[in-house]
Amino acid sequence: MSIITLTTDYGLKDHFVGALKGKILSEYSEAKIIDISHEIDPFNTVEASYIISASYLSFPKGTVHLIGVDMEHNKENKHIVMQWNDHYFIAADNGILSMLSQKIVPQKIVAINIHDRLPSGSADLDVFVKVACHLSKGGLMNIIGKEINSIKEVTTLNAVAAADGNSLKGNVIYIDHFGNVITNISKKHFIEIAKGRPYEIELKTKNIKTILPSYSAIATSEIYPIKSYEGEKLAIFNEAGFLEIAIFRSNPATTGCAASLLGLNHRSIINIIFS
Amino acid sequence: MSIITLTTDYGLKDHFVGALKGKILSEYSEAKIIDISHEIDPFNTVEASYIISASYLSFPKGTVHLIGVDMEHNKENKHIVMQWNDHYFIAADNGILSMLSQKIVPQKIVAINIHDRLPSGSADLDVFVKVACHLSKGGLMNIIGKEINSIKEVTTLNAVAAADGNSLKGNVIYIDHFGNVITNISKKHFIEIAKGRPYEIELKTKNIKTILPSYSAIATSEIYPIKSYEGEKLAIFNEAGFLEIAIFRSNPATTGCAASLLGLNHRSIINIIFS
Amino acid sequence: MSIITLTTDYGLKDHFVGALKGKILSEYSEAKIIDISHEIDPFNTVEASYIISASYLSFPKGTVHLIGVDMEHNKENKHIVMQWNDHYFIAADNGILSMLSQKIVPQKIVAINIHDRLPSGSADLDVFVKVACHLSKGGLMNIIGKEINSIKEVTTLNAVAAADGNSLKGNVIYIDHFGNVITNISKKHFIEIAKGRPYEIELKTKNIKTILPSYSAIATSEIYPIKSYEGEKLAIFNEAGFLEIAIFRSNPATTGCAASLLGLNHRSIINIIFS
Repeated sequence: MSIITLTTDYGLKDHFVGALKGKILSEYSEAKIIDISHEIDPFNTVEASYIISASYLSFPKGTVHLIGVDMEHNKENKHIVMQWNDHYFIAADNGILSMLSQKIVPQKIVAINIHDRLPSGSADLDVFVKVACHLSKGGLMNIIGKEINSIKEVTTLNAVAAADGNSLKGNVIYIDHFGNVITNISKKHFIEIAKGRPYEIELKTKNIKTILPSYSAIATSEIYPIKSYEGEKLAIFNEAGFLEIAIFRSNPATTGCAASLLGLNHRSIINIIFS
Repeated sequence: MSIITLTTDYGLKDHFVGALKGKILSEYSEAKIIDISHEIDPFNTVEASYIISASYLSFPKGTVHLIGVDMEHNKENKHIVMQWNDHYFIAADNGILSMLSQKIVPQKIVAINIHDRLPSGSADLDVFVKVACHLSKGGLMNIIGKEINSIKEVTTLNAVAAADGNSLKGNVIYIDHFGNVITNISKKHFIEIAKGRPYEIELKTKNIKTILPSYSAIATSEIYPIKSYEGEKLAIFNEAGFLEIAIFRSNPATTGCAASLLGLNHRSIINIIFS
Repeated sequence: MSIITLTTDYGLKDHFVGALKGKILSEYSEAKIIDISHEIDPFNTVEASYIISASYLSFPKGTVHLIGVDMEHNKENKHIVMQWNDHYFIAADNGILSMLSQKIVPQKIVAINIHDRLPSGSADLDVFVKVACHLSKGGLMNIIGKEINSIKEVTTLNAVAAADGNSLKGNVIYIDHFGNVITNISKKHFIEIAKGRPYEIELKTKNIKTILPSYSAIATSEIYPIKSYEGEKLAIFNEAGFLEIAIFRSNPATTGCAASLLGLNHRSIINIIFS
């Protein structure tokens, strides 16, 4: 039995998440279900893709990830399962999985074809539930879908190095609970381009010249307490491996945060200059 | 062992939900607990009733549903258990269960009478915990309560057909996470009155003449992509069987939603005219 | 196996909580994880301390409480485990646990010393996960830390009796989901000072002269229904044992609540006069 994770835009007020879990447990009473997020911005496939990419590796191999974002079955939106990095991902073919698997080739992809086998009146979610339980029990992908070679390619914002190799330009792709902004500039990409050179991350306020190993590395003084650094801006590579611009110990509701204080928003450009 | 579901107005910031689960697990370490919602509007028994009615059938028969909304024990508010449709519902006798069971007669109802058997200083919630664990383990209702024949009748808003059968008038009873509005007009009631006639759902903006089988059925064109239909209003019968007025792929925080764009709120009237 | 509870300021939108659970289950697949709260105000150690103190006793003895608030490991912030009242608490030594254990002496405290034993690139949270799983499996504290005698003392706001014993002054330490305000005046402290005398809780509006045994005890009339008391202010000792000023059946979003209607906020002074 493997874990089933849930990532949706259903919110937590309505009964949707509870009902989804009830359906899974009705189908498979031993299922172990873990919520990743139900607060994805409605129909926001970019957010869904970031959240799942940042978290799937924290789960054991073989985990089944059910992604309920923009998943209504229609002529443009097929239901697929992707086996990738030894995890299973169930989603609509709406770009979420193509963003996820840009760097590593999937092991196997199937187009789910069990829709006709369910009782009439079944909802799209019932299909995902059936597939998730099947895979969690160790069932084969070929039993619930037909193998396909490719999924819908979605051109997303990618960090791009300048032709002369002297700058790297990315975008804000996510703003977290603390108001810190996450970019699509990966540590790997940065190291490739930087080649050990000094750099500046350009901001409207003073540029950042050092990416720190941890938030509290901002507190360099032997004399002043860490508390005295609250409110300072900093950059780190976060646990998901992406460049993050943060305010040390920020609280969006009171003191403000990187997004508000630095004027950064979804899709804002972040540029790094190497010298 | 059967599942215990939780539906409360406790919110998720405070410790109340965690403490409730701790109490259940202290009483019954094997309990399987599933959250339905903890974001019911405070003391809103109508919302609680809708949420539980829309979700209980997703759980296996025998599931125990603990409803912690307006449940303080007092002279007006007795604690009851209702066995209904092969599920168990634990709540205060404040109308939540009478709204739920309007159409189908309960199998059995008991007034909980174990309050004196608990240690002094026990809270009302401790009573519900004790009862939920007892029932989840397969215990009999008569051991924790005295059978009663009726519960407090609460006159709620019901959809009403006009005397001439040419219109059906309902109300908004719930607004969901996507800002879609759910009415108390059931699919069953609609079919009875419609008798196959054409109809119009009256709205402040242009009326709706077709109730769709799914959200994306709004996209009827072979030429235009589904995305081009974003923002259009539509009507469906939702999974709970009620008429829902929706905006296709709405996001209340950005593009607006059915509630805001169509000027609909809790208790707003929705009228369907048959011709 | 004992339960692992989680109390953090991670919020529920990001992947942090899901990833934390994935890490725990990767380390210990049988772990039973219960959320207490993930909506602690960012970096607010006072809130974290109140929430954990108000809820830990609802869990069985031996429960492991992981507290992920302001827990980055740095020169000022050591990682510790405290065994107290037969529960285990894992946190940074930032005051959360010293506030918790002011009245009862801890059974044992260790400074966690396994940081070097984890793979390089491990995050602070990985340390907490390792320790939580170790303790949940029944492992000894000495294996994951070095015994210490004291933790960082944090001077928090304490309720103080006047020198003449005729008044007791406290502060608002928490505002709950219903907008009710919780003070740091404990029932025990109140009884000690009151010595059975009449009292008045001073408020900007009319003082409160009686602390009630339950919310609905406000409804004293035999004639009027309980509903007619909605909106009245009252005081009780809540389940956590602290004085709470409440509005009967309040809804912060619609009718207002104790915090808004009585002008009380975090740290506001609450004074009780005895006569």
